[in-house]
Amino acid sequence: MNFVEIIEHKKNGLELSREEIAELVRGAAEHSVPDYQLSALLMAIRLCGMSRRETVDLTLLMAASGKEMDASSIKGVVMDKHSTGGVGDTTTLVLVPLVAACGGYVMKYSGRGLGHTGGTVDKMESIPDMRVEMTEAEMLSQVKKIGCAVVGQSKEMVPADKTLYALRDVTSTVDSLPLIASSIMSKKLASRAKVIVLDVKAGSGAIMKTVPEAIKLAEMMVRIGIDAGVRMTAFITDMAQPLGTHVGNSLEVKEAIDLLSGRTKGDLLSVSLSLGSRMLSLGGLAENDDEARKMLLERIENGAGIRKLKDMISAQGGDSSVCDDVSKLPQAKCALTLCARRSGYIAHMDAAALGMASVQLGAGRMRKEDSIDYSAGFVLEKRIGDYVKAGDVIARIYSSSEDKAEIAAESMTAAIEIADEKPQMPVLIHAIIDENGTHFVDGVK
Amino acid sequence: MNFVEIIEHKKNGLELSREEIAELVRGAAEHSVPDYQLSALLMAIRLCGMSRRETVDLTLLMAASGKEMDASSIKGVVMDKHSTGGVGDTTTLVLVPLVAACGGYVMKYSGRGLGHTGGTVDKMESIPDMRVEMTEAEMLSQVKKIGCAVVGQSKEMVPADKTLYALRDVTSTVDSLPLIASSIMSKKLASRAKVIVLDVKAGSGAIMKTVPEAIKLAEMMVRIGIDAGVRMTAFITDMAQPLGTHVGNSLEVKEAIDLLSGRTKGDLLSVSLSLGSRMLSLGGLAENDDEARKMLLERIENGAGIRKLKDMISAQGGDSSVCDDVSKLPQAKCALTLCARRSGYIAHMDAAALGMASVQLGAGRMRKEDSIDYSAGFVLEKRIGDYVKAGDVIARIYSSSEDKAEIAAESMTAAIEIADEKPQMPVLIHAIIDENGTHFVDGVK
Repeated sequence: MNFVEIIEHKKNGLELSREEIAELVRGAAEHSVPDYQLSALLMAIRLCGMSRRETVDLTLLMAASGKEMDASSIKGVVMDKHSTGGVGDTTTLVLVPLVAACGGYVMKYSGRGLGHTGGTVDKMESIPDMRVEMTEAEMLSQVKKIGCAVVGQSKEMVPADKTLYALRDVTSTVDSLPLIASSIMSKKLASRAKVIVLDVKAGSGAIMKTVPEAIKLAEMMVRIGIDAGVRMTAFITDMAQPLGTHVGNSLEVKEAIDLLSGRTKGDLLSVSLSLGSRMLSLGGLAENDDEARKMLLERIENGAGIRKLKDMISAQGGDSSVCDDVSKLPQAKCALTLCARRSGYIAHMDAAALGMASVQLGAGRMRKEDSIDYSAGFVLEKRIGDYVKAGDVIARIYSSSEDKAEIAAESMTAAIEIADEKPQMPVLIHAIIDENGTHFVDGVK
Repeated sequence: MNFVEIIEHKKNGLELSREEIAELVRGAAEHSVPDYQLSALLMAIRLCGMSRRETVDLTLLMAASGKEMDASSIKGVVMDKHSTGGVGDTTTLVLVPLVAACGGYVMKYSGRGLGHTGGTVDKMESIPDMRVEMTEAEMLSQVKKIGCAVVGQSKEMVPADKTLYALRDVTSTVDSLPLIASSIMSKKLASRAKVIVLDVKAGSGAIMKTVPEAIKLAEMMVRIGIDAGVRMTAFITDMAQPLGTHVGNSLEVKEAIDLLSGRTKGDLLSVSLSLGSRMLSLGGLAENDDEARKMLLERIENGAGIRKLKDMISAQGGDSSVCDDVSKLPQAKCALTLCARRSGYIAHMDAAALGMASVQLGAGRMRKEDSIDYSAGFVLEKRIGDYVKAGDVIARIYSSSEDKAEIAAESMTAAIEIADEKPQMPVLIHAIIDENGTHFVDGVK
């Protein structure tokens, strides 16, 4: 097959055949098609789009392009969840142990921080001695034993996505719905989960800036999963402000521990409960979402959730005593309080800018090769809608140096708007998409 | 400057700044931007287009990307012409000596055959011992002495185009009007001609299949040239059938010799006279096109044209006695007559398919590395509108083997349609585009 003709078909707005898409996937996985042809085709896909059939074909062929997980030895429903990435978004560390504590099997490949968004693998590595690289056999054995595992991306799974993802990053073709959907779903399908719950973020801190865009992406991914025989639900959740109050690696681990120990609540718990209860109900471990929610809350109250997190940390070589004493997590040298410069309501937060402030502090990477300061970050004391008086503490900034903290404080001040009028409160969950369609929540359309 | 941002701007339909286009040109000329980023940008340009300002900037920056010709030592107006490529289209070999015989200075870089279309350099190489590679100094000296030179593309001129052209060929981004226009015009401007006449082909045998498409391309190129201070005219000429009756390298040289010697006439002469008279009038060597046409015809009648071709062949090391005895040109071993299988009018020719038949005979290259059979090709005895009886000779095929000739005969039979109804006669010149706008000829709109 002539690859130039495949590019030509897409460029002319035609639907690619399954064989043509297979050639793209093979070319990317085996490096048999030169990068300059792959990138021309990626740009044509970005600009001309892909039909549902093409997107499903691309996803399934990518999923099959490398080693696929064989989870048949697990006697139970294997579940997975995925977030499209946000700021202060550590639902994985809350959800995975909590669902496992209810009898679920959760096997999750996670990523590192990207741009202004954090990554679960980086957060886990802030726990002393924690291992995030495991063989498939080790991972399966751990899931069979304790019900859960969270590890870094496998090098052998979905090699086509690795090539295409790296190219997309440097050719301005990241923001293509079919390419995002197939990249995420191919990795999920290759790990052979039977239940997948997606958390598609919408707002200033997310890839998808608006709810309609996020819904379009979520609908695409849910359809792909359903076509592949997976029980699916996607939540469109808000990223107008950081989800949790803690932003930064060890700080987010601390917040997850606090939540699982019943010491704090808030939006991070609300979203975690919504995602987790749908995982349990889709997995047949609860009759419905309400029953599942009760089960999850019970596991927080009776300590089963935090015990499961300790089990997982221990199983992966980490120091689980951090769950009993969070001061054992990496601690920052310097702390700086960010105070309100005027009185008024917290009216708006630029979540992406806040995420970038955490990167400035060292919590994320400017370049691939940068190392991370696990202790760096900040804790927000106020959220959108709160009233502050001039001088009130808005956030506590943690850093390895006062200079960095002061630079971040400036960025954060610019990213947090204080106004006289009480703002409309942000909606936490905008919509839920499942096999029955798209359901709007809280009256948002 | 971040090249990903440049790609992003074009992808989002924005106009690129001069600095951004300069980065593209520098990246291509110096290979400082990886091919996969150049090709993503080329596809974004193909799909999102370029404004007039962007196209002019791209052309001028490409023209300046390498060595530019210094023709200041020639005391006269330097002229150039360019054809977008066709079948049996050997106007250059007729025009260049004829205009020089009228006192013009014609300095022309030509290309090799591409796909089904022939190339002047290949045709010239069919003349025994003819040199097509010359240094700039040699070329200037020859033009000063005899008024004309036709040589192969310089390796040092417009290096940015060389990179981009090679990439476009393998990424399905050839068919972009701003990219075609800037590629052609950058090479013309780098050679510093003050008068440029373009022959933009339209029809089955051309890159531009329709007259409106061809006009769009021509208008773009004329505007670029005028903005750069060049006196410009573009002719939209017909490529519904081969322009000349001879197709193939030495066969086309023979036809040019026959025309310049006054032995034959036809469409090739008509188009050559139109292009040539505009060159003379734009160059100030004639008051107007009519006077110029008379001058050109006079140079055929009095033998000055064919003498100038002999001078040029001799100056470039070739055997100019071919002009007195065309049998000294390479002669094919086999000849086969193609006869009409039914009676009727020649209603339609697929000029691209006829061009490909000449490639099958060996007159062109299937792959870059193929060598050429200079003697191969065919001579059409009939043109669209002619009446034939079953068994009449339509064409004479020349080849190195009977097998090849028979394969080509099949292709040619399929490409030439005979019908009962007398067809509408094809228009030879559809439109003329100059600084005063677009003028339709022969009532075609």
